[in-house]
Amino acid sequence: MDHQGRQQRLRSVLALHHLDALLVTHLPNILYLCEFRGSAGVLLLTDAKSVFFTDGRYASQARSEVQSAQVVIARKAPLAAAADWLATHAKKKAGRRASSPSSQFRLGFDAERMPVAARNRLAASLPSHIRLREALNLVERARMVKDAREIERIRAAVLMGAGLFERALAAIRPGVTEAQVAAEMEYAARQAGAEGMSFPTIVASGKRSSLPHGRASRATVPARGFVVCDFGVILTDYCSDMTRTVYVGHPSSEERRAYQAVKEAQLAAVEAVRPGTSVGEIDRAARKSLQENGLAKHFTHSTGHGVGLEVHEAPSVGAGQTEILRPGMVITIEPGIYVPDRWGIRIEDMVVVTERGCEVLMPISKELFEI
Amino acid sequence: MDHQGRQQRLRSVLALHHLDALLVTHLPNILYLCEFRGSAGVLLLTDAKSVFFTDGRYASQARSEVQSAQVVIARKAPLAAAADWLATHAKKKAGRRASSPSSQFRLGFDAERMPVAARNRLAASLPSHIRLREALNLVERARMVKDAREIERIRAAVLMGAGLFERALAAIRPGVTEAQVAAEMEYAARQAGAEGMSFPTIVASGKRSSLPHGRASRATVPARGFVVCDFGVILTDYCSDMTRTVYVGHPSSEERRAYQAVKEAQLAAVEAVRPGTSVGEIDRAARKSLQENGLAKHFTHSTGHGVGLEVHEAPSVGAGQTEILRPGMVITIEPGIYVPDRWGIRIEDMVVVTERGCEVLMPISKELFEI
Repeated sequence: MDHQGRQQRLRSVLALHHLDALLVTHLPNILYLCEFRGSAGVLLLTDAKSVFFTDGRYASQARSEVQSAQVVIARKAPLAAAADWLATHAKKKAGRRASSPSSQFRLGFDAERMPVAARNRLAASLPSHIRLREALNLVERARMVKDAREIERIRAAVLMGAGLFERALAAIRPGVTEAQVAAEMEYAARQAGAEGMSFPTIVASGKRSSLPHGRASRATVPARGFVVCDFGVILTDYCSDMTRTVYVGHPSSEERRAYQAVKEAQLAAVEAVRPGTSVGEIDRAARKSLQENGLAKHFTHSTGHGVGLEVHEAPSVGAGQTEILRPGMVITIEPGIYVPDRWGIRIEDMVVVTERGCEVLMPISKELFEI
Repeated sequence: MDHQGRQQRLRSVLALHHLDALLVTHLPNILYLCEFRGSAGVLLLTDAKSVFFTDGRYASQARSEVQSAQVVIARKAPLAAAADWLATHAKKKAGRRASSPSSQFRLGFDAERMPVAARNRLAASLPSHIRLREALNLVERARMVKDAREIERIRAAVLMGAGLFERALAAIRPGVTEAQVAAEMEYAARQAGAEGMSFPTIVASGKRSSLPHGRASRATVPARGFVVCDFGVILTDYCSDMTRTVYVGHPSSEERRAYQAVKEAQLAAVEAVRPGTSVGEIDRAARKSLQENGLAKHFTHSTGHGVGLEVHEAPSVGAGQTEILRPGMVITIEPGIYVPDRWGIRIEDMVVVTERGCEVLMPISKELFEI
């Protein structure tokens, strides 16, 4: 991946925001910018330098993974080490600017991520001429549009994820536990080379299908009813996310109509995806379709979200959201309806926005599968 | 679990800190206090009431899980909904206190968890007489000491985790990938009824054993060398965490001595665990033992951490930490040494602090296992 290029583009954004440097503390943002995959680290980007701080546990790993930044292995917490480094660096900078009336050094940090206490400690440890400035989601915004290599990786993750659905179909039968179905899928993922699942696997059967986030439990699949399967893998750092709802036994005509309504809503939203459209309009397309079938009140969540290094990332595809779609964005389209204590249905695909519309990354049928 | 009792004890702590209410935003703290297991929610504790806020996705789940608080299903984000509720509630309270010179309502929030931007939004949406006060780790501190039912659950998780080690031993052989070993362990965990793994499984073989956090990768187990296996399950909400290091082939005498040194350090630290001792002393016991064998410089992380609803929780068992051990605390003891690009060794048990010392929860031998 082009880490240097990403850092350079971010530097232009920093200049636009009148920031002299940015502290990157969110791990997926760090992975995006300098390829570190550990659990503790801070990346500091100034106009001229990139310095990555981590602790002794990650000495070898950081030196092998981080090629696009100077690596500092610190004895204190990475954020404190970054503050120390800055104290020295910003001093020099102030010296160079001695003739300038304003020798402040403006240090951006991500206010959506940094806890209040961490910001307080940081502020207390910085010399007074370094001023903390709230910067919101600068890296997240850069990550929204994927380049060709990222899309290639996402496509591979999606294909692997889709393969797991076959394992689910083979495993789902009355009497088996949801957890057992999840076990078969997760085992297949590992065997296929996944680094892990992108979130706790959802297998929600019978009445539990009415829980939008019904993690696979010890409940057994009943003789008759919907089973919502929502799952994804992580492959070469990128996530997949898909949902299919199958039926064990024969659905009633009401259930069949409801399934068709969700499918139509999903197709309507996919149809609406193109550059220049706002994500709020995509959400509206799904909701309007369900409304026409009198089912919109059961659609209790938003239509989708971005996917990439994180399974949930920007943009959020929900009511009132204004982000404008651009080619290279990868989002989910996943309307669902949930009738409490009865049943639920959700259909989810990942799509990539193209120059003229979008491409559905998921090659799996959306017809109602009866087991 | 005694959620009402936990909430009452926390109310006493709030009174001590002169807080009129506490906003609980960290999900494991919410699970601890009111049993909600979803991914979005806020629990508000006032002196008289407990109110839990979540969104439509969790309507059914919250109503079934949360028995110890009023449940509010909000159309806005849970934190914003809590602010709305507070605006009304605190108004009434100010009215009751009209004669008092100070009619401020002091609302605690966890400054170690709440992002700066969320705090800013919250502050902007609250009426001026509600004052935000930084409260640090109040629930985390309550969670440090486990009651008998929690220890029972932790014991069950540990036993299940220990069973996975047998699967690892059966799977580890030259040429198999680390990921395949992890796959077998994770499959066994699911089949045994685990809700999931408590963290990404570490299987680090050969040179990769020198990475303290070497997640199972596509690397193959070499014909000769250490393999560090660090893994845990989640069972009925509670985590397990253990590490064993095995050897494929026959270790050199240097390797054998190093293993013995880590084992001695681990036993020395376990030996030191008793009520009244500080966690810093436990760390010192492990470090001193390795020092006697000239290996302390390779011990690059802390000795352990608390385990419970989270796999890493308070207290941190590290150099200079001052927390005093009390009966019911559950911590890991996991010294390790890492020689970059050569090998690494770690041995980890979970122990529960008892009235007179501690009990090692892990029934697995610490002798060097040769495969």
